[in-house]
Amino acid sequence: MPYTAPVSEFKFLLEHVVDIAQITATERFCEATPDVVDAILREIGHLCDGIIAPLQREGDLHPAALENGVVRTSPGFAAGYRAIAEGGWLGLSASPEHGGMGLPLTLNTALNEMLSGACLALQLCPLLSQGQIEALEHHASDEIKAVYLPKLVSGEWTGTMNLTEPQAGSDVGAVQTRARDNGDGSFAITGQKIYITWGDHDVAENVVHLVLARLPDAPTGTRGLSLFIVPKWLPDADGVPDAPNGVTVVSLEHKLGLHGSPTCVMQYDGATGWLVGAPQGGMAAMFTMMNNARLGVGTQGIGVAEAAFQHALAYARDRRQGRTPSGERSILGHADVRRMLGGMQADIFAARAIALSCAAAIDMQQATGSAEWAARAAFLTPIAKAFGTDTGIAVANEGVQVHGGMGVIEETGAAQFCRDVRVTAIYEGTNGIQGMDLVGRKLSDGGEAAFSLIKEVEDTARAARDAFSAEAEALWDAAQSLREGTEWLLAQDDLNDRFAGSVPFLRAFARVLGAQFHLRAAQAAPRGNRAALMRLYFAQQLPELGGLLAQAQSGAGPLYALDFHAQGD
Amino acid sequence: MPYTAPVSEFKFLLEHVVDIAQITATERFCEATPDVVDAILREIGHLCDGIIAPLQREGDLHPAALENGVVRTSPGFAAGYRAIAEGGWLGLSASPEHGGMGLPLTLNTALNEMLSGACLALQLCPLLSQGQIEALEHHASDEIKAVYLPKLVSGEWTGTMNLTEPQAGSDVGAVQTRARDNGDGSFAITGQKIYITWGDHDVAENVVHLVLARLPDAPTGTRGLSLFIVPKWLPDADGVPDAPNGVTVVSLEHKLGLHGSPTCVMQYDGATGWLVGAPQGGMAAMFTMMNNARLGVGTQGIGVAEAAFQHALAYARDRRQGRTPSGERSILGHADVRRMLGGMQADIFAARAIALSCAAAIDMQQATGSAEWAARAAFLTPIAKAFGTDTGIAVANEGVQVHGGMGVIEETGAAQFCRDVRVTAIYEGTNGIQGMDLVGRKLSDGGEAAFSLIKEVEDTARAARDAFSAEAEALWDAAQSLREGTEWLLAQDDLNDRFAGSVPFLRAFARVLGAQFHLRAAQAAPRGNRAALMRLYFAQQLPELGGLLAQAQSGAGPLYALDFHAQGD
Repeated sequence: MPYTAPVSEFKFLLEHVVDIAQITATERFCEATPDVVDAILREIGHLCDGIIAPLQREGDLHPAALENGVVRTSPGFAAGYRAIAEGGWLGLSASPEHGGMGLPLTLNTALNEMLSGACLALQLCPLLSQGQIEALEHHASDEIKAVYLPKLVSGEWTGTMNLTEPQAGSDVGAVQTRARDNGDGSFAITGQKIYITWGDHDVAENVVHLVLARLPDAPTGTRGLSLFIVPKWLPDADGVPDAPNGVTVVSLEHKLGLHGSPTCVMQYDGATGWLVGAPQGGMAAMFTMMNNARLGVGTQGIGVAEAAFQHALAYARDRRQGRTPSGERSILGHADVRRMLGGMQADIFAARAIALSCAAAIDMQQATGSAEWAARAAFLTPIAKAFGTDTGIAVANEGVQVHGGMGVIEETGAAQFCRDVRVTAIYEGTNGIQGMDLVGRKLSDGGEAAFSLIKEVEDTARAARDAFSAEAEALWDAAQSLREGTEWLLAQDDLNDRFAGSVPFLRAFARVLGAQFHLRAAQAAPRGNRAALMRLYFAQQLPELGGLLAQAQSGAGPLYALDFHAQGD
Repeated sequence: MPYTAPVSEFKFLLEHVVDIAQITATERFCEATPDVVDAILREIGHLCDGIIAPLQREGDLHPAALENGVVRTSPGFAAGYRAIAEGGWLGLSASPEHGGMGLPLTLNTALNEMLSGACLALQLCPLLSQGQIEALEHHASDEIKAVYLPKLVSGEWTGTMNLTEPQAGSDVGAVQTRARDNGDGSFAITGQKIYITWGDHDVAENVVHLVLARLPDAPTGTRGLSLFIVPKWLPDADGVPDAPNGVTVVSLEHKLGLHGSPTCVMQYDGATGWLVGAPQGGMAAMFTMMNNARLGVGTQGIGVAEAAFQHALAYARDRRQGRTPSGERSILGHADVRRMLGGMQADIFAARAIALSCAAAIDMQQATGSAEWAARAAFLTPIAKAFGTDTGIAVANEGVQVHGGMGVIEETGAAQFCRDVRVTAIYEGTNGIQGMDLVGRKLSDGGEAAFSLIKEVEDTARAARDAFSAEAEALWDAAQSLREGTEWLLAQDDLNDRFAGSVPFLRAFARVLGAQFHLRAAQAAPRGNRAALMRLYFAQQLPELGGLLAQAQSGAGPLYALDFHAQGD
């Protein structure tokens, strides 16, 4: 069953739910007229449906492989990547100065979701390049920018991120890779990095690594980290890849999913690199791109969720099994099948609206420089990441269930979505870390950003009172509960009492925001499926809120009373 | 990290939570003295830890394969199976008349869980034999019993269940396989069956199929189905496998998990079989064993959950990453890691207690013939099946999350639990069908069985008032909410309004039962981990109840208002 990019859904959301007009009214994004937006969404749709989606199964069946030290990618992936590059899609949001289109991240988020729905394993490659482009735009010297950015934006070269080491996963400060000054402006990088996505491949002529490493005598911990750019092939004076660099692929990981995406162990043996940003400025550079990368990963979850939903719906429409109460001949007639599919769809809508509104806040921050937009973007980012990826996992899992026995037969394709999407809740900061970020750093403003979002929810509820009184009231009540929950967290003296409830709190926030967006959509299209989907969400999904907030406010006590060391011995 | 069978946990549960003394006080089960129970649990533990658990990864890496029409099983599986057979474990609950031990199903449930935790792919083989033994004990002629039961109980032969056909999955009534009377007491069976677990193998000398088929001129639907016994090798007059029968393996399925368990497409070409039970009595015979098989599958989920929990806990204990608020050096110091592991453990306890109390009710039904015990067993069965398998899936998924990036690397083993356990929510009646069974057939007594269980919850709450006043009150309130939810379902005129809320209702019931069992355990061991785990469940898991009951009572309306046909076109 082929994937169909949800182009008209994005149009509706951009117009009615996240107010793209506000973005395109700024000088920075004034070129993104409605016509341009429409044309771009349509083009992305063609690319994803026609060229990228057929690669999804290929990547799973024919994994990327290491042959004589070089990664050979899955059949068709090189052509698929070239189609993305030639469409100019690597540079959708990149600066026009280096060949980018300079369009809003909101549109780029739509691009990323549709590519992810079509083939997540391939989409990772351009996603990493996007992150590298952003990092270089903000932190690299003009010289480095001039050499690397045009190549990355055109897609001739691709980018990777090298943070993780065996002893340094979530704890980036434990990184041990060393950098020695060569005395000629370059550095010699030595160390091993793991989990390097698309660390090597045969789809483009060069691979450019951004590597976190430690200069001699640098302090321990994150403060001592610097960022280096290390190309696989060293460019000559004209920027043409010329001499091989001291970087090799040691092995590929054997993963649950994403078989088409080579996950490399990389060895740097005195590889030549150049500083990006200031010495010891590695974390600052990382943080610049991390927020957008996290949004990007949340968007991956939503893309897979959409694909898994379409796949399950198509199966349910065709499958006849048992008499149904409604007399419908397919299993769509069964209430529980509808409950599953409706819940999947309602959550996809919520997660997508949250991701787009996060992207919109980043765009507004960029366009206006406003601290308020920045705070809003920062607050929404961990929610978009964790809720988007949790939704991906939950929807893919429910998609298998809709298929019944066929769901676990690999040829059906439903199980692959589960396998592929699972890691999105882990990489780019586990969802637990997203929760800690939300209740820690993102509430460190005394709750200003949180309360401003809650206030907006109340405004939405107020505005919907006439058209949807019951749901408006439910949303209002939800906002009050969420406010109380937020106040409870803020009142805790021990930060660990916040951390204990961080994941349920994040989810509670997402539930309320999702309700708000559903209500906005229903107001824009009060008849038909939009309102029906909104009502289903209020009946089936929003009721989770009470339990989530109770969990969020139960503190660290019960968690630390349990003795895990006494067990299993 | 090796699996350790939770022997002492079972002892505690049997003694303090499900009251095995009540069972062993009956004449039927008087031989199951505490010494016998202890010795048996210990033996099972040795078998599972030492012999079966090492096969878990083997089965995944070296799947069962079809070679020249015969299934070759994974390395070590034959020896593992023989150890199970030679221990007499196939017949733990089988009648002594044919070589069984005649011990309570409650003990057999412990056996099944521990075998599943050690290696689910292998455990499926004896589980299927158990089901066949039970079916033959109840429905087969003395002649068939005499030939087949001793072989099945000794494990020399294994059993399979053949229900599903491509067009007949959950809708068993659509079965088309035909049976023609040979005029000599035997029948010629012709048709194709799919999803036949352990349909062929090399671990024992014969494979005995129970096949649902239709006699000539039989009515359509389930009423027209008869059950036949069809051995792979036809026994001679002395019961020795002699001539090949007309049954072949067409292919093996390529599955998400359980690679060590051969899932066969079977072709019957006029294969010789004999009636089990009356003509057109196939469904009656199926239903006899289906309840216990469903409990068995629920138990599989719990076994995998236990193994995944142990695996994740061992990883967390070892893994150092980041400064933790508690100063603990492993990631066990992080509140969210404790939240995940504590939730896993609390749910495993709840699911295990529910499964054991279901088994205990079946034992009491068998020992006393009481209709009340029968109704209780029937009511608990879909809850044990769905909650046990949902817990398996959720815990395995959380186990991957605890591992962080290592979780999706197959060598770690965490991901295999997810892949292996996924199908348990589907086979032996999807969990959606369990929900429909619960709110349909199992509430057709006007709620008598449900209210009797709720009354027991209230009694538990009352008894705990002094020792645990806050939790006793919470449990009492939960019982009231559950009663209201049950009354709401019973009051619906349209059965589909019940069906719409059936899955959340089932889960709500499990949540309350789980709370009850946790409280009982804490009362029996009021200090230390039992009480801490109970408090964690009340803080983190029980609060789901409100949302679940709201979902359960939202009716079919919102689900049918959504037009799935209008979408994606």
